[in-house]
Amino acid sequence: MDLAVIGTVALDTLKTPHGSRDNMLGGSAAHFCMGARHFTDAHLAGVIGEDFPEAHIGFLKKRGVNVDNLTRMKGKTFRWSGEYLKGNPNQAITHLTELGVLLEYKPEISVRHKKARHIFLANCDPDQQNEFLSLFERPQFVGLDSMNLWIDVKRDSLLKLLKRVDLFLVNDGEAKELTGEGNLIRALKKLRSMGPKHIIIKKGEHGVIAFSDRWLFGFPAYPVSDVIDPTGAGDTFAGALMGYLAHKRKISETVFRQALVYATVCASFNVETFGMEKTAHLTKRDLEQRRRQFLKFMSHAF
Amino acid sequence: MDLAVIGTVALDTLKTPHGSRDNMLGGSAAHFCMGARHFTDAHLAGVIGEDFPEAHIGFLKKRGVNVDNLTRMKGKTFRWSGEYLKGNPNQAITHLTELGVLLEYKPEISVRHKKARHIFLANCDPDQQNEFLSLFERPQFVGLDSMNLWIDVKRDSLLKLLKRVDLFLVNDGEAKELTGEGNLIRALKKLRSMGPKHIIIKKGEHGVIAFSDRWLFGFPAYPVSDVIDPTGAGDTFAGALMGYLAHKRKISETVFRQALVYATVCASFNVETFGMEKTAHLTKRDLEQRRRQFLKFMSHAF
Repeated sequence: MDLAVIGTVALDTLKTPHGSRDNMLGGSAAHFCMGARHFTDAHLAGVIGEDFPEAHIGFLKKRGVNVDNLTRMKGKTFRWSGEYLKGNPNQAITHLTELGVLLEYKPEISVRHKKARHIFLANCDPDQQNEFLSLFERPQFVGLDSMNLWIDVKRDSLLKLLKRVDLFLVNDGEAKELTGEGNLIRALKKLRSMGPKHIIIKKGEHGVIAFSDRWLFGFPAYPVSDVIDPTGAGDTFAGALMGYLAHKRKISETVFRQALVYATVCASFNVETFGMEKTAHLTKRDLEQRRRQFLKFMSHAF
Repeated sequence: MDLAVIGTVALDTLKTPHGSRDNMLGGSAAHFCMGARHFTDAHLAGVIGEDFPEAHIGFLKKRGVNVDNLTRMKGKTFRWSGEYLKGNPNQAITHLTELGVLLEYKPEISVRHKKARHIFLANCDPDQQNEFLSLFERPQFVGLDSMNLWIDVKRDSLLKLLKRVDLFLVNDGEAKELTGEGNLIRALKKLRSMGPKHIIIKKGEHGVIAFSDRWLFGFPAYPVSDVIDPTGAGDTFAGALMGYLAHKRKISETVFRQALVYATVCASFNVETFGMEKTAHLTKRDLEQRRRQFLKFMSHAF
């Protein structure tokens, strides 16, 4: 049931109308683990610099995250600093991106991890994602997330990767950009022809659309009235989704729907406060309570 | 079970990447009736000019629409001409709006209509909506739709009207503009404080959120892969919703959910072709078939 993930581990500095934070633990792989940890053992691969606080490593370990494949290199940890302006909490303005050790990182995993069956390629350089995926002996279910930067800058690497994965998680704007289709249903069909059997379009506050050869369905988002910091919401979403799928092993429409409910729930907690200040402390009970509210919101069950 | 509606009756001229049409029957009240006619007798109040083709009146009558309160005045019928550009089928570009007889119209209804219990104020001048509403003796359930123009130009009339209606249908952008809230859940609460017990936020391709003191729920939209002409989709949606509520009489969460499913289904047909070219010919069977597909899409029932 183990789940291996590669992605960024970052130090995030953020300003919002509700306050600010310096050097929070962030990054796609770290947020992913906050979603995955409820359902499976997450094994994090990534890179940090000499400046990365030991406390953050302890924080991850304490939450059951395996950090055997977290490499420390000479240099500075990847840093992002940005801002959310009043009235537009869904659109980050980036002030600074310092790639640091990310630039030199060659993905590596310990021998025992080569047998992992469930793999997630969280948002990072598609070449690193490709390289990481090649380290595994027999991947069984591989998920992929990316971002508009890589669609622009490394489109070929991304297209190559799409042929190697089972599940592609993408937001609506990226899906349109990647396919050149203005309509999401058409974009889904085009993405399918690019490789992945399963595609999930993330629409943020508007929910998700899930597509495979055998199903097409849509969920609204959980209604959140105070969005403080959506950074990492998509990664947390991916973590819960992949964690649940790894836990269940078998893929079916029902399992996918259940996984997406948990993913929505975990992501909704993420946006309600800074960084991992909520997702790091969630209990199964918190998840189940909000899950019931969400099912009621969708009128699935009561 | 009768349902009285006031709104515009228009001649629409439209250009899209898929073709164009001249002087189609359009307008908020006319589209409304295409949704309502499946569930109840719709009584249309509005105004047309001397240039309005008799054939359009026959077309409405043939579909069970009562036109006793459709007034013909000296002058020209309200005309709208616009365009949808490639890749952006949800954003109309207006080329021309000729108000014509709309400017002089004073709403009127026949004596027997004064007893109508279900009333809908489809998008038109809020002063005309207020005036129309005052013609009824004992309105039981009143719905309202509007548009950004009236929020800008006749805000006070609209605010006065909001205190007199039970249901407010509004799109997401308008809800934010009217309340000054960037978050829809907060906007809903603020709209509630402005009067209406029931509020439905229409998010187009992203579905709806429904709110009352006793419930909050969300639906995705029906997945349409070819949006040709969304003009009138919101009105068709409102028509099916109000028609179903009038038909059921009692308002409950379940009835509201059912009504919203039919509303979504009717609106989805509207966008698939020009004007009323689909909605005018839909049968109960068409509705039921797509309704089942939509419930499956949402995983409610099979």
